[in-house]
Amino acid sequence: MNVRGQHYRTIWPDESDSSVIRLIDQRFLPHRFVIEVVRTVGEMANAIREMHVRGAGLIGAAAGYGMYLATFEPDLMAAAEKLKATRPTAVNLAWAIERQLRNIGAAKTLEEKRSAAFRTAQEIADEDAEHCRKIGEHGVELIRQMSEKKGGAPVNLLTHCNAGWLAFVDHGSATSPIYAAHDAGIPVHVWVDETRPRNQGSKLTAWELGEHGVPHTVIADNAGGHLMQHGKVDAVMVGTDRTTYTGDVANKIGTYLKALAAKDNGVPFYVALPSSSFDWKIRDGVKEIPIEERGAEEVSHADGLHAGAHVEVRVTPETSAAANFGFDVTPRQLVTALITERGICEANEHGIAALFPEHRGA
Amino acid sequence: MNVRGQHYRTIWPDESDSSVIRLIDQRFLPHRFVIEVVRTVGEMANAIREMHVRGAGLIGAAAGYGMYLATFEPDLMAAAEKLKATRPTAVNLAWAIERQLRNIGAAKTLEEKRSAAFRTAQEIADEDAEHCRKIGEHGVELIRQMSEKKGGAPVNLLTHCNAGWLAFVDHGSATSPIYAAHDAGIPVHVWVDETRPRNQGSKLTAWELGEHGVPHTVIADNAGGHLMQHGKVDAVMVGTDRTTYTGDVANKIGTYLKALAAKDNGVPFYVALPSSSFDWKIRDGVKEIPIEERGAEEVSHADGLHAGAHVEVRVTPETSAAANFGFDVTPRQLVTALITERGICEANEHGIAALFPEHRGA
Repeated sequence: MNVRGQHYRTIWPDESDSSVIRLIDQRFLPHRFVIEVVRTVGEMANAIREMHVRGAGLIGAAAGYGMYLATFEPDLMAAAEKLKATRPTAVNLAWAIERQLRNIGAAKTLEEKRSAAFRTAQEIADEDAEHCRKIGEHGVELIRQMSEKKGGAPVNLLTHCNAGWLAFVDHGSATSPIYAAHDAGIPVHVWVDETRPRNQGSKLTAWELGEHGVPHTVIADNAGGHLMQHGKVDAVMVGTDRTTYTGDVANKIGTYLKALAAKDNGVPFYVALPSSSFDWKIRDGVKEIPIEERGAEEVSHADGLHAGAHVEVRVTPETSAAANFGFDVTPRQLVTALITERGICEANEHGIAALFPEHRGA
Repeated sequence: MNVRGQHYRTIWPDESDSSVIRLIDQRFLPHRFVIEVVRTVGEMANAIREMHVRGAGLIGAAAGYGMYLATFEPDLMAAAEKLKATRPTAVNLAWAIERQLRNIGAAKTLEEKRSAAFRTAQEIADEDAEHCRKIGEHGVELIRQMSEKKGGAPVNLLTHCNAGWLAFVDHGSATSPIYAAHDAGIPVHVWVDETRPRNQGSKLTAWELGEHGVPHTVIADNAGGHLMQHGKVDAVMVGTDRTTYTGDVANKIGTYLKALAAKDNGVPFYVALPSSSFDWKIRDGVKEIPIEERGAEEVSHADGLHAGAHVEVRVTPETSAAANFGFDVTPRQLVTALITERGICEANEHGIAALFPEHRGA
């Protein structure tokens, strides 16, 4: 999507030196737009772990490019392990690494391996962007229907965290139908959950919607239930870090609370995802999906711009403990539908298998 | 309760000079413990308006002491008006001022008026502390039962915002059963919602629990649902800014989301309140209780300690709008019980009227 009127992806190989990967270092958004140069597996692992890049699709693409960088290093398997260990909840990570290992393994010479890895990394990135574009194509029809029902009044969508193009290679998942609607001239307005503790909503989603000209309002994570009680949300649209083949949705902590409020108020709750975010093995998402615990300082502190500098402030007392659960799981019963690159389906085994029959009984 | 091992109320008359009132200036917590000396009605009005003191019970007590200070000034009615104008929506404010005007009016000489005002101010403060203490006396039995059921393992309570002793004269409402349990040797642990946007949880509740030695962990407001799904919360305990006589609970924005999660996971959801927080007129809380919208900068910004100084940082992009709803209403169906100074009752018209028959049919 566009940044200052110029089209960007979130990650791409350097045009003049193909052993170098460039990516948008999201830690500095929205206040500074920084492009990072990544040359080694260690640097890529660090960029994923420390969340210079984050989001389901982008983590997969970064792992793909990371495995390409691994072909310049002595130990491919060690590189794969290093990358895999960075973010335990993200299903795209292992998926991209395994795809790379298969394709690299099928090649013979080092040069062939390197070129297979580059090709695969590009494919992963291109597929991600294309799948997200298609999610928009399907999802925009839902927004169009809401708009018609409202007689053309702006459709109010609530989103949590950043499932925008910054979380993928381009377009985003939850935002893709929104961008498609906005571009098609359907009036939309987005309630952006700030998404503590890392504020991906107030930092990333607000920034990318703003750059694209989509009307939006940042709210505290606490506010969504109240808005739904008072008819101010037409639909919730979120992404997912991992969705089971049975329809349970792991996403940024707090998603479950919005799903409960949506159910309680008859508001549709949509989850948009490329099929790379499906977990074809896990049946019970709440019980079985591992939930990453992150550093307590993300909760005890907040950060932002002060007098032109990026500053971190301590909010809690020094002696208070803090805990930081990265994700929660929304049970399938609370999900109205899934929006995938192949179309829209119910969030259950039957609905998902009908769209993705090749995974049936996987 | 205790601060650095010493007992404090939130407001009290100076021991050596009874024409001086002292109060904890909460704006600097948790990073600095500041006691403010208040000598005039103007200073007290400023302390209430600028939220050096906040919370229903404490605002009432501050107004009571403010009216005592008014007896040292020429115009009693002007003082009453000045105090009343500070927080026009706070029900305890007008109530305390009118009680003072009645008692001062009944006295004859200036000395008698001054002494009646002092006595009334003390009564208002003592009653508030005593009602909160009784809430603890009743509520601790609930915690004791949970503790027995768990074989003495720590009881995990989740609270939202600050309904602690800092919001009252002492003990607090939601925290009172927790302090009572802790003081009785029942092991408890409190999950403290940080409570964006003003962070009363991570600033005030965490601080007061820490000073009193109660084990606690600060979490993002998003985390509670996940904790409940995984059996890590034995009960939710919150306060209220206003509860209808039918049991609908207005409280800090986000309370409703925790109530939904509690219901979905079979976790008891308790609301603790002195009867001064009942609204005896409103029937439908969701429809009828007006919800205050506050300044957007509370959402776009965060604040805390940086390099020894209190600093405010901008989180959102400069061009993004933000909205700030102060409260939400939790429908009575989601409330397990109310804990009042007279005992515990169901959150409905019948249960409340049984404890407070003098308001029946009010």
